[in-house]
Amino acid sequence: MDVGFIGLGRMGRAIAARILDGGHTLTLYERTPGHCTELVAGGAHAAATIAETCAGREVVITMVSDDVALAEVALAEDGICVSLGAGAIHLAMGTYGVAMTALLAEAHAEAGQRLVGAPVLGRPAAAAEGQLGIIAAGEATAVAACGPLFELIGRRVFAAGFEPESAMAVKLANGFVLACAIEAMSEAFALTARHGVAPELLRDVLTGGLFSAPAYEIYSRIIVDQSYETPGFTARLGLKDMELALEAAARANVPLPSVSVVRDRLLGAIAHGDGECDWAVLAREQARASGLSD
Amino acid sequence: MDVGFIGLGRMGRAIAARILDGGHTLTLYERTPGHCTELVAGGAHAAATIAETCAGREVVITMVSDDVALAEVALAEDGICVSLGAGAIHLAMGTYGVAMTALLAEAHAEAGQRLVGAPVLGRPAAAAEGQLGIIAAGEATAVAACGPLFELIGRRVFAAGFEPESAMAVKLANGFVLACAIEAMSEAFALTARHGVAPELLRDVLTGGLFSAPAYEIYSRIIVDQSYETPGFTARLGLKDMELALEAAARANVPLPSVSVVRDRLLGAIAHGDGECDWAVLAREQARASGLSD
Amino acid sequence: MDVGFIGLGRMGRAIAARILDGGHTLTLYERTPGHCTELVAGGAHAAATIAETCAGREVVITMVSDDVALAEVALAEDGICVSLGAGAIHLAMGTYGVAMTALLAEAHAEAGQRLVGAPVLGRPAAAAEGQLGIIAAGEATAVAACGPLFELIGRRVFAAGFEPESAMAVKLANGFVLACAIEAMSEAFALTARHGVAPELLRDVLTGGLFSAPAYEIYSRIIVDQSYETPGFTARLGLKDMELALEAAARANVPLPSVSVVRDRLLGAIAHGDGECDWAVLAREQARASGLSD
Amino acid sequence: MDVGFIGLGRMGRAIAARILDGGHTLTLYERTPGHCTELVAGGAHAAATIAETCAGREVVITMVSDDVALAEVALAEDGICVSLGAGAIHLAMGTYGVAMTALLAEAHAEAGQRLVGAPVLGRPAAAAEGQLGIIAAGEATAVAACGPLFELIGRRVFAAGFEPESAMAVKLANGFVLACAIEAMSEAFALTARHGVAPELLRDVLTGGLFSAPAYEIYSRIIVDQSYETPGFTARLGLKDMELALEAAARANVPLPSVSVVRDRLLGAIAHGDGECDWAVLAREQARASGLSD
Repeated sequence: MDVGFIGLGRMGRAIAARILDGGHTLTLYERTPGHCTELVAGGAHAAATIAETCAGREVVITMVSDDVALAEVALAEDGICVSLGAGAIHLAMGTYGVAMTALLAEAHAEAGQRLVGAPVLGRPAAAAEGQLGIIAAGEATAVAACGPLFELIGRRVFAAGFEPESAMAVKLANGFVLACAIEAMSEAFALTARHGVAPELLRDVLTGGLFSAPAYEIYSRIIVDQSYETPGFTARLGLKDMELALEAAARANVPLPSVSVVRDRLLGAIAHGDGECDWAVLAREQARASGLSD
Repeated sequence: MDVGFIGLGRMGRAIAARILDGGHTLTLYERTPGHCTELVAGGAHAAATIAETCAGREVVITMVSDDVALAEVALAEDGICVSLGAGAIHLAMGTYGVAMTALLAEAHAEAGQRLVGAPVLGRPAAAAEGQLGIIAAGEATAVAACGPLFELIGRRVFAAGFEPESAMAVKLANGFVLACAIEAMSEAFALTARHGVAPELLRDVLTGGLFSAPAYEIYSRIIVDQSYETPGFTARLGLKDMELALEAAARANVPLPSVSVVRDRLLGAIAHGDGECDWAVLAREQARASGLSD
Repeated sequence: MDVGFIGLGRMGRAIAARILDGGHTLTLYERTPGHCTELVAGGAHAAATIAETCAGREVVITMVSDDVALAEVALAEDGICVSLGAGAIHLAMGTYGVAMTALLAEAHAEAGQRLVGAPVLGRPAAAAEGQLGIIAAGEATAVAACGPLFELIGRRVFAAGFEPESAMAVKLANGFVLACAIEAMSEAFALTARHGVAPELLRDVLTGGLFSAPAYEIYSRIIVDQSYETPGFTARLGLKDMELALEAAARANVPLPSVSVVRDRLLGAIAHGDGECDWAVLAREQARASGLSD
Repeated sequence: MDVGFIGLGRMGRAIAARILDGGHTLTLYERTPGHCTELVAGGAHAAATIAETCAGREVVITMVSDDVALAEVALAEDGICVSLGAGAIHLAMGTYGVAMTALLAEAHAEAGQRLVGAPVLGRPAAAAEGQLGIIAAGEATAVAACGPLFELIGRRVFAAGFEPESAMAVKLANGFVLACAIEAMSEAFALTARHGVAPELLRDVLTGGLFSAPAYEIYSRIIVDQSYETPGFTARLGLKDMELALEAAARANVPLPSVSVVRDRLLGAIAHGDGECDWAVLAREQARASGLSD
């Protein structure tokens, strides 16, 4: 396929490399010239503008940081909506808000283009091995057309429906279920610490029983080790995702009390200077609230 | 060993059977005569009073329903504290409050006896197969003395420290981490339902990724199937455990905001007549709060 | 009337003095001899036992600190239930739990006595001036019989129904409405402080507008002055009342999410060593959670 | 003064009339021609464009519904920022978000203009009588220059500092303190109803004691009468203000747990079809959550 790519951070580059290696034609939007040397050396074409990145492509993938960045590359003057051909697909693989995604879907529909929402589950390392989870939603033929690309990067595709924003809702839900697990563990560690229990013991009980899953194994390890300074995902980014979840919930009139609890702890963590720590620092913030940490 | 046993509900009988099969001498306190025919047929002695159940035993196990029942059998006139011999062990295997357990530990110490807190993880079926998790805490030699019994019923013993109530804190923490997982899923199902996503799809995403653990597999299945009417553990019992967790937290000055969220949803579920449903009915209560269910 | 009195702390003594001055016959239970010199000098009889305090009285008033103290004087051996004559009234003027009050009402009914719940609104100084609010509930004739006493101590009687525990529910509700007001102000002060607003200005806006009531005037003053070290009512006592409110709510299957928020902040305050401060220290705990205070 | 006015809803018209009556020159932006007949009859000039409304004015007042409407009239092409003369004042009297207000302040500063944030406390009827509270913030000379206008419409001016957004933070804080009071009352009515207490009795206790303020008198009356269908301020508008408060809090890293509780109840109310009811309908939503209402 003839693919354009916008948003070449760590995750974007990993996905782009898989697509290139899969034999597809790739045109990158290189905002900072020389940023994607490796991909260009591998045969990708570096375009100087979004317009050039989009013109004539079957699919343009975006993997940008947030709603504002998405609006900038897609909705602004000379953005994707203006530049993409009729019938072409905008494959949005970042995690964006439900409202912004719905707005964008409408804009693409008006321009005769198609939006597929396909946020991913997993870290860049998983992308590099083609092991991402992909939550895809949009018009059925458009989602199907992206199949060959999904196969290169994903271990599994979850079909989340026909509205691109549905995929975002699922991604955000998966994210807050994780956040709530971390928060619950944080409360559990604080309670048992106050009762004289060694953290390692609680970790054993949890992960040796009902919670023998990566979410608990990974994050209880970070909490026990207090290794917050080498973040896999920061408190600040976690807060962003909780805000998006709460926005999606407000749009749908769904109260999410557990997510509000997480949001408040993340705000506290950031207020205490831990915004760039791993979001498992929720446990330190919970310890603070319990008088167990400064 | 010469073992007494008080509290022969489903879990109690399963544990007692393992101990009897393991070759130990067993004296049961049969409150309702004829209740434990099978165990008696297997060689257990049925005592008519707690005093008779305790006198001369090395260990007396209790598996009763709550703090009040425990106080009744242990602290009341002619109870365990009065009847057990010096140096003997009261092995408390139910889930009791931290405050009650500490009180009882003190009473036993004054009477020259020893209390071991050893609440279990798992259902009666797991007990019957010797596959319980056992969280044990108490004086080291007393915990060690119970080792032969633990081996018969448990897959693993988690050593939670030297105060019997520490074991209760860990058990309660494990319980509320589960409750918070169910609540988080409930919120996730409500949010995605409002965005048109099929529940089965969300279940796949969760259990196919970071949450591939029994807690999520079992409870998301109940939620998707709405099979609340065949409870494994009821909302009312769940509420009891959350209250015990909050009590343990108050004693230790630890705020547990996520647990308060669960507590409120359980109260709502009970107010709506769902108290005897499986506590995964949290999802129905969350749906109600979101205008998705009557 | 011939009145007995048990529980002579500051509030109890103020009420007892009004009753004595009103011309009634007063028998005190003086746990510590010599504790009530002034009242005895004024004509009260000091009894050495609860039995003596109760025998032959028309009404026995209790003003003790909590549920446990109430159980001790009323339900224990030689307590009020045993000692009070048939048809006589136990007038419970402290703030007690709904469950304990209902239990006590039943015990009195069985003994042929009557319980009136009549917790008071106001501080000892208001009692000394006969300016308390009185929330009274119980059998109508029993409440009416207490009228002459209420007139001496109260500015107003609120008739809360026929079950003594209803009066407790109203008292607890009034208490948590106040706590929620303090918590809301605490959040408001934290938010505006972060936006550079002087606390005094926010106080002016609140009390100069919709909130021109003692609750806001008194507590915003304490918060602005940070005068937490001279408590009118401590954080620890506030927590006790929130726990009673939550217990009453659990009994009635009513979720009280705002009260849980207050409870968590009070636990945090106590964990940080502020348990004996005025409960307006909620504002300092909120400031801590916002990174505004150590 | 030579005053422009944009946003002539009920509140806007009431304020504009006071200014006109005070002898000032008034130019209205009449989006729908004929909307402001009365004001025009009184001597106001109706302009057809924002540009015409602004050109040459000393002060332009805005009283529009929300952030988006403000952005539209102030930041868009031919908006206030483009049309207002150097040194002139934009007096923003609506309730806007802190972030939007800060953004706008910057835009005005770049254009050599001055922004004064001056949200008001009170209903249109209070405006018509010159009895609003005015929370004013901005550059000191700019705030002072608005003095003659404030005198015509306000009972009192609260000086909230030098950044226009500080005035918004105070307005939002005042708003959520009110919301929390309504929520606390809602919880209190639910709890006491379950204990058999008449709502009118609880109202008497509250407003006859610590809470003898308009906030409690007005809203407890609505709750007791269940007169939600004639809204003074709707649940939907209440939600908007809670969202703005939470946004202001997120910007400042301040957790506001009580506001999250209110937000969740408002979402539930809207989900149950009560969005256009008076926001005291929080009490009905709380009753629903307690199984007391359908």
